[in-house]
Formats: sequence, C-alpha cells, structure tokens
Amino acid sequence: MSCIPCSAQTEVNIPRSPSAQETPMQELGRMLWFDPRLSRSGFISCNSCHNLSTGGVDNLKTSVGDYWQQGPINSPTVLNAEHQVAQFWDGRASTLEEQAGGPITNSKEMGATHELAVTVIDSIPGYKPYFRKAFGTDEVTFDRITASIGAFEKTLVTPDYPFARYMKGDRNAISEQQIRGWETFKKYRCVTCHSGPNYGGKSFQKMGAVKDYETTNPSLGRADFTKRDRDRMFFKVPILLNIELTYPYFHDGAVSSLPEAVKIMGELQLERSFSPEQIADIVAWLKSLTGKQPEIVLPKLPPNGPLTPIAEPWQKSN
Amino acid sequence: MSCIPCSAQTEVNIPRSPSAQETPMQELGRMLWFDPRLSRSGFISCNSCHNLSTGGVDNLKTSVGDYWQQGPINSPTVLNAEHQVAQFWDGRASTLEEQAGGPITNSKEMGATHELAVTVIDSIPGYKPYFRKAFGTDEVTFDRITASIGAFEKTLVTPDYPFARYMKGDRNAISEQQIRGWETFKKYRCVTCHSGPNYGGKSFQKMGAVKDYETTNPSLGRADFTKRDRDRMFFKVPILLNIELTYPYFHDGAVSSLPEAVKIMGELQLERSFSPEQIADIVAWLKSLTGKQPEIVLPKLPPNGPLTPIAEPWQKSN
Repeated sequence: MSCIPCSAQTEVNIPRSPSAQETPMQELGRMLWFDPRLSRSGFISCNSCHNLSTGGVDNLKTSVGDYWQQGPINSPTVLNAEHQVAQFWDGRASTLEEQAGGPITNSKEMGATHELAVTVIDSIPGYKPYFRKAFGTDEVTFDRITASIGAFEKTLVTPDYPFARYMKGDRNAISEQQIRGWETFKKYRCVTCHSGPNYGGKSFQKMGAVKDYETTNPSLGRADFTKRDRDRMFFKVPILLNIELTYPYFHDGAVSSLPEAVKIMGELQLERSFSPEQIADIVAWLKSLTGKQPEIVLPKLPPNGPLTPIAEPWQKSN
Repeated sequence: MSCIPCSAQTEVNIPRSPSAQETPMQELGRMLWFDPRLSRSGFISCNSCHNLSTGGVDNLKTSVGDYWQQGPINSPTVLNAEHQVAQFWDGRASTLEEQAGGPITNSKEMGATHELAVTVIDSIPGYKPYFRKAFGTDEVTFDRITASIGAFEKTLVTPDYPFARYMKGDRNAISEQQIRGWETFKKYRCVTCHSGPNYGGKSFQKMGAVKDYETTNPSLGRADFTKRDRDRMFFKVPILLNIELTYPYFHDGAVSSLPEAVKIMGELQLERSFSPEQIADIVAWLKSLTGKQPEIVLPKLPPNGPLTPIAEPWQKSN
C-alpha cells in the first residue's frame, strides 16, 4: 500500500476534524451557521445564540437580538435537537429546516427577511460553488439556506456521554452517587416526561403540573401556537443531554443552578420535596449526560461581492 | 518506515488542525478569544468584532458594542497583527497583549472591567487546569488573560499567499495583470507607506497627505493618543495582507469597494488620478495578498461555576 509518511502528514494543514468528513450540504450549512450576513445587522449569526462553544446555547436568560432587543424566551440547545417531537419551546416548527428560518426573520432575533437573506447570500460569488455542490445548481433560495443549516444541525450530536457508556455495560463509567441519582430519577418517574434518547424533547407537558409556576415571562407555551386554552403553559420538555452546559434553565431562564432546578421540578411537577441528598444524587447523574462536544472547524466565509449590500446595524429604516 | 494506513487515519476524530499543535498559552488564549463571558453582557467575545471567519474583522463600518453602541472606529484585522509598529489605529498600545485589554474594558465595546473579567474567569473551575498548564499556577490575573489572548493572536498569520509564492520564484503564482498591478504599486511608491512583510502597519501616516479626507468620523488618529497637534489625522498604515477580506476600508470604514479605495488613496496620498486600468491592475494584485486563513477549531468552553455571576445584558446598573 502506498502511503504518505505520517511525519509529512502532520505538516499538512487540512483539518482532520469531523468537519472534514461532512457532506456538501452540511459544509454549506456550517458556513451559513456562522455567517452574520444572514442577519439584518450583519452582526448576529445562528451561533450567537446557539453557541457551539457553550453547549449550543448562549447561557443567557433570554437572548440578545437585533438592536440589543431582549429575546422572548430562553434559547434551547441545538445539540441533539433533531429527534424531538417538534422545534421551539412551543413546537411551532416541525423540523430543524422549518425552525432554521424562524430566528433569521424574527425581528427580535436576526431581524432579516427571506428576501434580504437570499439577496445577500446570492450576491456572494464565493457561495456559488457550495450551493452547486450541495444542490446541483448555484441557485440560492431560502429553502436551500434553511435545508443546509438543518443538515449541519443534524451533525451536532453528543452520543458518547458517561451514562451511555454505563448503559452499554461499562459499570465504571459513572460513580455510585450517579447510579443512585439515576435510580431516584426513575423511582419518581421523572422519565415519564424526560424520555427517549435525549431524556426529553418527546412531548409537551405543563410547566407547573401540580403547582403554578411563578414567572414574569409572558409566554403561554404551546397555547401561543395552538391558541387553545388547554395548552396554556405547556412547553416542550427540555432535553437533558448536556444539561450541565445549557443553563440557565426553564423557558424563562430564571434558574441558573442545577440543584435549584431539580428542587423546583420536584415541587412543581411531582408535588415532592426532594431531600438535599436526593437532589445531589440526581444532579450528579445529570452531569453524566454531558457528551463529547462536536468538533467544529470555524468556516472561512467568502467575501462580499460588488453588489452585496453593506449591513447598517444602526439604520432604523430597514 | 512503519505507517498507519491513511484510510484508518481519516477515521480518527482528533482534529489535526494547527489548533492541535498550539502551546498551552495559545490554547487558553483561543478559549478566551471565543468566550463571551469576558464581556459585561456575556454576549460579545473578541471574535465578535475580529471574526476569524471573515478575515479577522466584522466587515462593518464600525463595530457593534455593549448595548448595541456604535463603535468609534473601524475594526482592524487581527491577522498578522503582531509585527506592527503598534496596535490600534492610533497606536496607543505597543503590544498585542496590551491591546487585548482595551476592548474588554472599553464601555463601547465589551464593557467589562479588569475586576469583572478576572472574577468571572476565576470563578470557572474548568479554566483552572488551563491556567496551570500555561502559567504553572491556576491563579487568574488580567495580565495572564491578555497574555494568553496575545499568544493566540500571534498564531493568526497568513504567510502562504499567491504573491508570496511569486516572490519566492513561482512565476505562475499570479497573473500578468497582477504583476502589472505590483509594478504600478511600486512605480508610484505606494510601498513607501505600505511597507514591510504585511505591506503596512509599520508607520503612522497622514490620512489625506496632499488633500484633506472628508469624513464624519470624529477620530483625530494618532493625535487622540499623543495630544500633539502635528499628529492630527495620522493613522497607522493599514495592513494590505488579506485586504480583499477586510472591507470596509479606512479608519471610518466609509469605503467598501477596493477599486474605490485605491482611487481615493491615489488622490489623497499621491495627488494622482489612477486610470481605470491602473486601478484594476492594482486591485488584481491586492487580491494576490489573500493568504490561507488560519485553521481554527472552535474551543469547548468550561461551564460556569456555582459562584460565576450570570450576565445580565440589559441591566443598566453595571
């Protein structure tokens, strides 16, 4: 077998991260994910609020949007987001592709329009070969933009976490305390809602099942989308994978401590006051759900073309 | 020679980008570079305005800062920034390390304080091992933060650009038009100011040497720092490496087209009207200064500790 000497290979500057093995659509999606030109201001990208350096969230109660507007709800993680019943806290998008269009055109988030996003990306000559590779032609459409971002998001998985290794038979993958936490989590049926491979994201449940949740956040959850009174305060159950990284917690981001969040869940959902030991055990177990974060190579974005509109962050007329 | 089959190597998930070969201080600097917790809001990182996906700049006239404030001056590129006479347009910092502290504590940029930055980073347990590896102890000081960021910035070089290959003897590295552009650039002594390995960054020169530069930007350049009248409108000569990526141009970011920038330079600095052909040639040559951009692996940032203050982007009291 002919082979380049490894010593020589280490000098080669081509990244060997998973990014190097991605499909053309995923590669284009990774570029668009980091491209602030998808926002009105030219300053905010998907990664601004779903930061892949910090668990796919911004670790803020609610996000900073266009003109420094305060976002309406806590930014959910993009990690492992594919296999959920729906997207957004209220489930108003059924797929990642459908979801991806939301923040781009939300006036409190990226503040762009379909037309602006397509015009800007279409005006950048360096994007053309990537669209051709991904879709066969270099035509830029909003659906192609969101399809690429969705394809990239599907690569953002964290399968190899300690509890997964434990469940596969490695008894030493987690501690005794973490095992106790898992037993407690099962015993009190937290798994009823936090179910499936992501320990959540599979159903809509009432925030405050047995006791009202006090919050200043105006969101009514699922009811904001369905307009049905019975959906008031029903939210998509958050994913527990990487929960250690995705603070602050709940749809309003009101709670930044994991023990506090577990305590409140016990009281509001189970009518149960967990003991400090039980809380410590469950928190220890939750930390065994933190997986190896995706290896992301920062994309090199193509420069503006002669017709690319220059973003004006402070311009109010847009 | 024993050698792992290349096919096997492609399956290895460890990144092989330069990031993998960095020193402990550079690694820590790369983490801090991308960490928005160095800003008051928890939303702005070094990379927000010196985006390594877009030539080390934000491609805005002036930058978006804390509370969406408009920055005072165009964000200069961080690429190849080490070997300059000084840092900032007015040269008020003599080293990258000294420069790095500026934006973190500038109320119009990241809006933090030395105390806040140190308190936040010191409160994050996951940073401790990186400080220990880089500095011997896990003590967090502002100097260690800026020293690490400076060390990382020194890795952000783009040596392998077509004109460099041409100068090393590869006559086919650039086109006939690019060679004509270089000849024109030399003939009219643009190299007097755009000198050195970066084609700039080596001196302070008057913007508008032979004709006043009209701008609404209030900056007086070097005079803002020295308070000397004779330094009015003297700015550090911008680096031309990667100029194709670092638009918009000049300290006020007023010009987004490279041909327009070349035309204006001829008129304001040389009292010369370049012909359209000369401008096209020079622009073609300038594009041969675009180097291979640094391969950056996005860092995985450690989560907050129990004492880490949660950022409040909209809180005015800070």
